[in-house]
Amino acid sequence: MNRRQRFLAACKSQPVDRPPIWVMRQAGRHLPEYRKLKEKYSFHELVQTPELALEVTTQPLRRYNMDAAILFSDILVIPEALGQPYHFRDVGGIEMEFALSSKADIDKLSIDAIEEKLAYVPAAIKLIREELGDDRALIGFGGSPWTLATYMIEGGSSKTYARAKQMFYAEPELFEALMEKITAGLVRYFEMQIEAGVDALQIFDSWGGVLSPHAFEHASTKWMGRVVEAIGGRVPTVVFSKGMHHLLDPLVATGADVLGVDWTTRLSDVRRALPANVAVQGNLDPIILNTTPEIVREEATRILDDMRGIDGHIFNLGHGITPQAKIECMEALVETVTTYGQ
Amino acid sequence: MNRRQRFLAACKSQPVDRPPIWVMRQAGRHLPEYRKLKEKYSFHELVQTPELALEVTTQPLRRYNMDAAILFSDILVIPEALGQPYHFRDVGGIEMEFALSSKADIDKLSIDAIEEKLAYVPAAIKLIREELGDDRALIGFGGSPWTLATYMIEGGSSKTYARAKQMFYAEPELFEALMEKITAGLVRYFEMQIEAGVDALQIFDSWGGVLSPHAFEHASTKWMGRVVEAIGGRVPTVVFSKGMHHLLDPLVATGADVLGVDWTTRLSDVRRALPANVAVQGNLDPIILNTTPEIVREEATRILDDMRGIDGHIFNLGHGITPQAKIECMEALVETVTTYGQ
Repeated sequence: MNRRQRFLAACKSQPVDRPPIWVMRQAGRHLPEYRKLKEKYSFHELVQTPELALEVTTQPLRRYNMDAAILFSDILVIPEALGQPYHFRDVGGIEMEFALSSKADIDKLSIDAIEEKLAYVPAAIKLIREELGDDRALIGFGGSPWTLATYMIEGGSSKTYARAKQMFYAEPELFEALMEKITAGLVRYFEMQIEAGVDALQIFDSWGGVLSPHAFEHASTKWMGRVVEAIGGRVPTVVFSKGMHHLLDPLVATGADVLGVDWTTRLSDVRRALPANVAVQGNLDPIILNTTPEIVREEATRILDDMRGIDGHIFNLGHGITPQAKIECMEALVETVTTYGQ
Repeated sequence: MNRRQRFLAACKSQPVDRPPIWVMRQAGRHLPEYRKLKEKYSFHELVQTPELALEVTTQPLRRYNMDAAILFSDILVIPEALGQPYHFRDVGGIEMEFALSSKADIDKLSIDAIEEKLAYVPAAIKLIREELGDDRALIGFGGSPWTLATYMIEGGSSKTYARAKQMFYAEPELFEALMEKITAGLVRYFEMQIEAGVDALQIFDSWGGVLSPHAFEHASTKWMGRVVEAIGGRVPTVVFSKGMHHLLDPLVATGADVLGVDWTTRLSDVRRALPANVAVQGNLDPIILNTTPEIVREEATRILDDMRGIDGHIFNLGHGITPQAKIECMEALVETVTTYGQ
């Protein structure tokens, strides 16, 4: 069983010798070699140049014994391809060039040129696939329709998601029209990724957790379910709705093979409450990687012990690694997981 | 059964004619009369001048048929009284005058003068108590030891709570020393509030939800339990740990009479999983109050219907009301709850 097979077996809740591991945002700012590249190239250049995306994607694999790579990209390439560009503020996160608020704004969005505009993505995937060969899994990804909609309606990062929620509650037709477009764009984007060679797809519903249970079903999981349905089992799917591990019914209804779980709950509780064929991915608190290798070993072992003997577990953090994470902590994490039970 | 009796009965999970209602941060920026006062006085002046705190506390009661008032104050008066002042940044939240990082920093904190430094609090409570008489309940409050510790260690607001978590994980003795001091200060502060006449106490564990289950027990609920124990049933206690409604065992173990629940879960699911004598408080999404009266009625009724026939429910939002909430939405909310079932 090689690393790719281990990852894919765990996605299908099949028995494995040990849980496969990868880390959300493993390619990025915690790595000195990434920070060095960033001195020369902008984030957008790294994402949009296939050779650079290849380099960034594979940087963590040279350091760590990961079972999977994740394409280096960004969830906001979809709004951009639909006609709503963005940039990163120096302080305060993401800023879209404008905020959607009217039917005219939404009518202007178009998925027609998505294949051309995002051609750099399959180009990067092909290069990465070639580099990885059959030895490690390659994960593609996108934002959930709801999470993308929050950026598009708020005009960037938000604290309260007031505008996005207001459109959902008070202008349901407008909201539906927007969600239809985002979902159609996302389906095409995922098809491009599958054709180019990804082994699995993760949907990041980063802001699903700001909704009430009723709104979560209607504004988020319903649309993720449509995306998963369109993927049609061609590759396994992972749905990560941060903060929503207690709403398992709508999450299971999406049809995802794997649910990402944040660090605020006991992973075995979630796994046991799920159907036997739905796996979990998680769930170490990312901040543990900012402490010491000893603490990392202790906290990672706590999760491994909790999940011992339970199929369908992909080890990961409960959210993205922070730029302040220490290399020696990541090394301790990977060593702990990859040698567990030996 | 008057409003105060209704609120107190619900705290004890006893039958009531309808759920009592109050709203977190009901006194504050959503009210034009508050904003007018703020033109003349600083936030600190409003908090520290008993006549002004009385005025602000009672402003929402003149507009809305609330069953309870909550003292107008701030959780950070405790760090301030221990020797760590703070102010509000124009952008980016709270800034403490310094961040705690060493044993010497923590040794310098002192609870000795807390009664003098916070004398304005019982003075305000006595004025409010007199104004309310026996007709409405008066809720006192404080931050949880963990939540206060995050501000004190981070030096203000935070996104990742990395420093606070690092102290918890990597410097447990330092962390314990700090928590002992905060907890001792909080207990004295709550005793002052009880003696001055509050009917109930709410502990705001606003940042409990950033912890893993294991850390939550050791960094947060354990210390809240100490505080509840010291209150010793003299008044009912409410514990609000945002985002942690799935970790009921440690929350119940605090001994609180009521658990505050945010809007991301179905309230009846939480209530049914609790012992019969532990009530719930919540849980409308605050952003609903920024929409329309019709939507408010629909969403509030969804919660009331879900909780119909279940004792031990105090209606509230799932978090504080926002400054953008509309008066007509608050009116619709209060009307919906106070006329429910008639």
